Order: sequence, then structure tokens, then C-alpha cells
Amino acid sequence: MGPLMFFLLYFLLLSPSLSSQESVNVHQLPRPLILEYPDEGTEQEEINLQCTSWRFGVEANNLNPWKTIPQECGDYVKNYMMGKGYQLDLERVSYESSVFAKSVHLGDDSNDVWVFDVDETLLSNLPYYVQHGYGLEVFDSVEFDKWVDKGMAPAIEPSLRLYEEVLSLGFKIFLLTGRSEKRRDVTAQNLMNAGFKNWDKLILRDTEDHGKLAMIFKSEKRIEMVKEGFRILGNSGDQWSDLLGSAMSTRSFKLPNPMYYIP
Amino acid sequence: MGPLMFFLLYFLLLSPSLSSQESVNVHQLPRPLILEYPDEGTEQEEINLQCTSWRFGVEANNLNPWKTIPQECGDYVKNYMMGKGYQLDLERVSYESSVFAKSVHLGDDSNDVWVFDVDETLLSNLPYYVQHGYGLEVFDSVEFDKWVDKGMAPAIEPSLRLYEEVLSLGFKIFLLTGRSEKRRDVTAQNLMNAGFKNWDKLILRDTEDHGKLAMIFKSEKRIEMVKEGFRILGNSGDQWSDLLGSAMSTRSFKLPNPMYYIP
Repeated sequence: MGPLMFFLLYFLLLSPSLSSQESVNVHQLPRPLILEYPDEGTEQEEINLQCTSWRFGVEANNLNPWKTIPQECGDYVKNYMMGKGYQLDLERVSYESSVFAKSVHLGDDSNDVWVFDVDETLLSNLPYYVQHGYGLEVFDSVEFDKWVDKGMAPAIEPSLRLYEEVLSLGFKIFLLTGRSEKRRDVTAQNLMNAGFKNWDKLILRDTEDHGKLAMIFKSEKRIEMVKEGFRILGNSGDQWSDLLGSAMSTRSFKLPNPMYYIP
Repeated sequence: MGPLMFFLLYFLLLSPSLSSQESVNVHQLPRPLILEYPDEGTEQEEINLQCTSWRFGVEANNLNPWKTIPQECGDYVKNYMMGKGYQLDLERVSYESSVFAKSVHLGDDSNDVWVFDVDETLLSNLPYYVQHGYGLEVFDSVEFDKWVDKGMAPAIEPSLRLYEEVLSLGFKIFLLTGRSEKRRDVTAQNLMNAGFKNWDKLILRDTEDHGKLAMIFKSEKRIEMVKEGFRILGNSGDQWSDLLGSAMSTRSFKLPNPMYYIP
């Protein structure tokens, strides 16, 4: 689907409701028309605007479930992931998390916890996605598991700094990942090779957790933590299903990930 | 503070933790240096990247409480609000909300509810913020209330379309705003003039609610709704404090707002 089709589709999806409202615009702000047909020269600019808007939809959790990134946003997502945009966003979320971590008072019972997701939160699978279209291809679990089994995923450096900081502040670190229990050893080894040490728990999906939505699985595990007397103060994840649901942490931090969606 | 100071400050804030980590970079992705000093020609580009990243932090709820937008992002936020960016984001969130609204099955008891915030969700205060630096100025409640009392805030058109759609689907509409009960009449009149009709409840801050954080106040009101037997399926707001807390809706929709933050 070319850019023209993209705009056409966008227009078609929105136009019925647009026109039905024209008569009730009592107040209207003076604004440029949004859905105008782009000039040759500004077509790329239009696609960038559309894809930036799409990315904000992803990061604000506004989008309905999706399986691949929009075809038109392939280059945009590639440029974002490989350029400064992704790095800046990672730095910022790490920095804001650290400001919060330093601001909270921890109890004397060592029951204050920071939860981290693993993939695209502590470890980067970008080397895999570089080879698989940055989210343009439908997720292939067989191929992806081959990559995971190599145990070669690099650290996300700003997350590693945060990790070490919350450890040194006295938080317990619980790692909560949708990876299968079968991959405990390779996951632990990969994490240690990448510099992550001294976590208190590494929680993976056991047999009875397979088939559960990530949000349900992770909520159940957080409920268990709370029942055991832990206080979840911080939670870092690249998916909203890492962060929302039950027993939510005091503050949640959403790492950027425009490449895939896990419900 | 000029752009140079901005980058310098950014560098200073992050550099201690950066250098302490250099020795443990077992795996490292080949990436351009993030914190390099920008060329003359690309300085504007750098500021745009930084401000886009800041805006991502706002919309993903990663930022710690803030009172004004970063000085360097004044032009960026103005361009976003007055250009296509804001409009595209409003269109997208309205569209995704409507897809969700149409996908859910409503009960026969008319107890399914969609909650809407008012300011920057149904009504736009952009005409006020155009005169007050798009968030560069510290919020002035006296000046803002004068604007509110005019009752002239225009509709956010994509929200009006969503509003009418969820009404026609059979949802009850509850408006939940941090505005004071004293402004009930002007608020209702403004909403009606802007095209919003047939809401079931308009809930404002009563005397006992003043001084409560918005998140607490709105959570309490949602808890009441649930106790009365209502099911909150959708919730639209431009602040995370509209959406998070207790009795959260099945789906929350975050409208863009890079101009101000309400805890």
C-alpha cells in the first residue's frame, strides 16, 4: 500500500463522521485542514507526521490491538530505533525513574520492590528486529526463540544504570517476564553477561501461565508479591500490559517500543 | 536558558551515571553518540528531537510533576498545538475510542458508562493558552477562571464526534471535571453551546473536594459510580489523573496535552 492509499484510507475511515458533524460546529478554532492532499514535496513530511502520531498512540496506550506496524511507517520506525530518537527516550525514562526512586522513603524491612520487565526493558532485541523489518513482519515465535536461545541480547544501557541505582538505594529487584520457564537459564545467563546482577526474583511463565494474557499473568504475580508483604514502588516496562491491571506500582514507567504490541 | 545550556545541563545530569557504567558494557549496540555537541545547522533539529522526547515523556506518563513546559520547547509546543500534529493526535484517539466503543457489548440495563473529562478533552482552552505562552507561563488560576467564566471554549471536534457516537450506541455519558461546583452553570452552558448534549451527570468539585488531588477526587467519584451499579467501559481524558487510580475504566484514552500537568 503506497502513501496515497494510506491517506485515502485514513480519509475514508474518518470522513463519514467528519461530514455528519459539520453542521454542529458552533465554535470552531481557526486551523489548517488536516486531511488535505499532500504536495509532492511535503509527502514525506506528512508521512512523518502520521507516523509520529501513530507512535504517540502506541506510547499513550490509545491504540486498539495491532499485529504489525503500519506499512507506511517502516522507514520511520527504523529511523527512530536506529537514530537518536529511541536513545533519547530511553535516557529520559531512565532519568525520570531515577528521580522518583531517589525521592521515595524506603521502609526498614527491605520489602520495597522495583519490578522490571526483561525484553525491550533491560535487554534489547533490536539486533533481531533489524533482521525482521522493525515490526513490519508478523511476529514469528519460532524465529524469535532461536534468537533468545543465543543469549546475546545486549543491555539497554540507560536501564542498566537505573537498575544499579535502585539496587544501591536498597530496593529489591523482581524481574517479571513473559518468557517461558524453559528459558530461565539462558535468560539469567544473558542478563548477567549484559551486566544485570543481584536481582531477588526472576519470574517467568510457568506451565499454568501459558495462554494467559500478559496483563493477567503479570497482575497475578504482582498480587502474590503484595500478599507476601512487598510494596511495589516502581515498575518499568515497554508494554502497557507490564504496567496496568491489579496491584499496580506506585509509579509506572513506560519504555518506548513502537515495534510490537503485547496485550 | 539557551539551547547550548540545555544540552550542557542535559549532559551534566546524565554524565556521572554514564561514566560509571562504561566499564560494564559487555554488549553494546553500534549507535551514534547521543550527547554530542550539535552543529550550527542541526541545532534546531536537536531541539525538536529533545522536545519530541519530552512530549513522549508527558504522554506516556513518565515525567515527574512539572509546572511549566521546558523553556526550549516553547516554539515546539506552539507549532504542535497550532499545526497538524495536535489535530492528527486528536483524530487518532477519537477514532481508536470509537472502534473500541463499537466493539463492546452493552447490557440491557442502560448501566454502561463512558466518562469524559471536560477541559482539553471536550472543550479546548487553546484560545486562552495562545495568550499565555502555551504552557511556558506558570498557571494563573485567577486569569484562567476569567476565561472559563466567559463560557467561550470551543469544542474539540473529534471528541464531539466520539461523544455523539457513544451516545447513539447507548452509553450513558458522565462528565467528570476538576472545575468547581461554582462553575456548574457556565460549564453546562459552554458545553451545550459547543454542541454537547444529553449527558447523564455533570460532576464537579464540591466544597469537600477542594484540595484533593485530581486523581483522588476522580477515583472517588468513579468508585461511587461503580457502587451505584454502573459499568465504566470507556474514559477519555487529557491528564493521566483523569484515567488512573481506583475504579479504572475497561479502556482509557489519553488525549494529547503537552501544555500543562495536573497531578
